[in-house]
Amino acid sequence: MVSAKVTVVFKEGVLDPQGKTIFNALQDLGYNSVKSVSTGKVFNLDLEKDDRQDAERELNEICQKLLANPVIEDYRIEVE
Amino acid sequence: MVSAKVTVVFKEGVLDPQGKTIFNALQDLGYNSVKSVSTGKVFNLDLEKDDRQDAERELNEICQKLLANPVIEDYRIEVE
Repeated sequence: MVSAKVTVVFKEGVLDPQGKTIFNALQDLGYNSVKSVSTGKVFNLDLEKDDRQDAERELNEICQKLLANPVIEDYRIEVE
Repeated sequence: MVSAKVTVVFKEGVLDPQGKTIFNALQDLGYNSVKSVSTGKVFNLDLEKDDRQDAERELNEICQKLLANPVIEDYRIEVE
């Protein structure tokens, strides 16, 4: 069994309205030391695979097809 | 300047409908080696702080107040 963590974040330059809203809320709450906020998604997957490289190849396909939008998002796969 | 990554995931036992939907979609796409999927959120924050411990204390407050719902979510703070 292979456990993997996939992190999906917006590419540099893509607007992140949720991050901007959180940033504004933190300023209003007085957390003025916060200088930037960006948001992303994390997915934890368990795969029944013995081969780590095979798992990474399949996770890459899954990210391209389902978990990320490669036009506006970058993803990182960490296999444990 | 302190950079931090906050990861927010559902507590054990809390329903994760997005994760379930992704799991079902992966089965339909033929990725039958995938045995479980769970989802979460990630926030990258930059704080203008010199003291790492002070930053961690403030990030903990921010998580409790804004980034996580402590009733149903767990969070992890990683300061770089």
